[in-house]
Amino acid sequence: MASESKPTVCFLGPAASYSHQAVRQVFPEDRWDLKPVATIDDVFDQVQDRQVLAGVVPFENSTNGSVVFTLDNLADRDGRYKDITVDGEIFVDVHHCLVGRKNPHPLAEDNADGSGTCTPTATDPTPSKPKSKPTCSLKHIKRLYSHPQAFGQCNAFISTYLKGVEIFDVSSTSKAAEIVSQDETGTWAAISNELAATLHGLDHLGKSIEDREDNTTRFLIIGTNPSVPEDWRLQKQPASMAGSKSLVSFTVPHTAPGALADVLSCFKEFDLNLTSINSRPSLKAPFQYMFFVEFEGHRYHDPDGSVSGALDKISRVAESWRWLGSWERYR
Amino acid sequence: MASESKPTVCFLGPAASYSHQAVRQVFPEDRWDLKPVATIDDVFDQVQDRQVLAGVVPFENSTNGSVVFTLDNLADRDGRYKDITVDGEIFVDVHHCLVGRKNPHPLAEDNADGSGTCTPTATDPTPSKPKSKPTCSLKHIKRLYSHPQAFGQCNAFISTYLKGVEIFDVSSTSKAAEIVSQDETGTWAAISNELAATLHGLDHLGKSIEDREDNTTRFLIIGTNPSVPEDWRLQKQPASMAGSKSLVSFTVPHTAPGALADVLSCFKEFDLNLTSINSRPSLKAPFQYMFFVEFEGHRYHDPDGSVSGALDKISRVAESWRWLGSWERYR
Repeated sequence: MASESKPTVCFLGPAASYSHQAVRQVFPEDRWDLKPVATIDDVFDQVQDRQVLAGVVPFENSTNGSVVFTLDNLADRDGRYKDITVDGEIFVDVHHCLVGRKNPHPLAEDNADGSGTCTPTATDPTPSKPKSKPTCSLKHIKRLYSHPQAFGQCNAFISTYLKGVEIFDVSSTSKAAEIVSQDETGTWAAISNELAATLHGLDHLGKSIEDREDNTTRFLIIGTNPSVPEDWRLQKQPASMAGSKSLVSFTVPHTAPGALADVLSCFKEFDLNLTSINSRPSLKAPFQYMFFVEFEGHRYHDPDGSVSGALDKISRVAESWRWLGSWERYR
Repeated sequence: MASESKPTVCFLGPAASYSHQAVRQVFPEDRWDLKPVATIDDVFDQVQDRQVLAGVVPFENSTNGSVVFTLDNLADRDGRYKDITVDGEIFVDVHHCLVGRKNPHPLAEDNADGSGTCTPTATDPTPSKPKSKPTCSLKHIKRLYSHPQAFGQCNAFISTYLKGVEIFDVSSTSKAAEIVSQDETGTWAAISNELAATLHGLDHLGKSIEDREDNTTRFLIIGTNPSVPEDWRLQKQPASMAGSKSLVSFTVPHTAPGALADVLSCFKEFDLNLTSINSRPSLKAPFQYMFFVEFEGHRYHDPDGSVSGALDKISRVAESWRWLGSWERYR
């Protein structure tokens, strides 16, 4: 009975995805129902339609950059997500594994060193070196499944140890592990996380195969303000509080020279530090853009009025604009 | 003998790719050898190593946004491409086809309407409608191959007529057509261009299936300045000349509030209009960025000194910066 009254948070599934990991860091399961959905669009739909109280979507990875599917939903070009605000962020350290089936009959001459494929050549005198080695021979691997972002984060490992293997993009790293678990040839592998490998009973062929030690994905918590309770805020992430952040989107008059600089100078004028800027096609006309800016400051905890001052000025300089949310930082 | 003396331009292959189409618009085959290579990285490698005189790489699509592989090479984080400059741009109108094998035994009740999958629902009251219909039933299609950017440009068609079909990302739309041409089950399809379909003897299952009429991809011409001859400039694109453009990359001091606004205000101060801004992870530390700005003006045709004035000021405000090229616009 108690479970019926628990609010629901949805995330990009399936179970054991990095999004699932993000949700578990902030939404305790004794107080929240955790609901996996198939796509980032589905998370936005569920939140907008009040099927759930909160949603968690990936926003950017420290190696691979922005998640355009999330930006495109925040762009909200057709007004479908008009009530959605960003209410928080979650950082997840990403460690990718190569998982599949070990070669049951490895040849003596096979080794895990990739046969010198990392050797400097005339065309690539300084190849980036993978920071980890396979745990066994990968000669039998013919197919590699993962999410495009994961491929982008494991370039050095793939180009050294998995040259010539056919690449298949799927919707999530956990989906990749699921597909490989159904392979009967023993020649498929997935880039996935440890939890998914365990869940699907796969062997580890490589651990921490990501290019960089400091591989972190940032997720956003979205809701339909003001219905999100203060509840999730109580479950702070381990790092200390570090002020607050806000996100706005805007378009600028296409023909005005310096229009973008004009909008950005609104932040500078009020001493608000920009922490990220992104652009996506506006889809009003080719090669016109919608911009996304994150900055330090909170719309509703704004003692010196700097945020309201900047937003007020932006409303006069930008062609169109939208405040997308303000939240506390815990990093 | 004459052919031996022709300079070479390389592009993202295989034959019949959109890049191939871009190259053919500007580099006449009687005066240039056209060389397809496998990846965007290969184009950069060939140009940097003077294997070829020029290269053509996709830069952005009007529906789908920036091509991050090209941005990441222009970022040149390890100094591999230090001699490369951008010397021009090419616009290609993109029309995607669905190609494969027609169902040899369609059932009478099958039709090409997708059985109402575009019907408004509670969760999606205003689904975006595809602008074209399949030319035949697609019930037999089980797999869909294409480049991720092409999938992004055909969302409405795919979600209306190809729901539940398994998606396979490959390196180019022409590669997708090639793979489908080898399918013996008759159940695979590719999103590709008309030329590739013809080349591989495939049936048209849908024409102009892209979401938007005005779907254009912009390519950059890269070279190792000043070795690119004036030659290709003679082959102008049909539209009229429209001034010139330049591209710079830069990083800003991470701790200085307003540092990005400071750099952008350099352009405004000299009345230079920004035409695009992009950011990518700097890979120096998580969530620090390298920025790319395009603006109107030419470093070497700069009668009023505005470009040199702005670049000079940027060199004092930015943490690091690089002029990546200036070129004439033909659009």
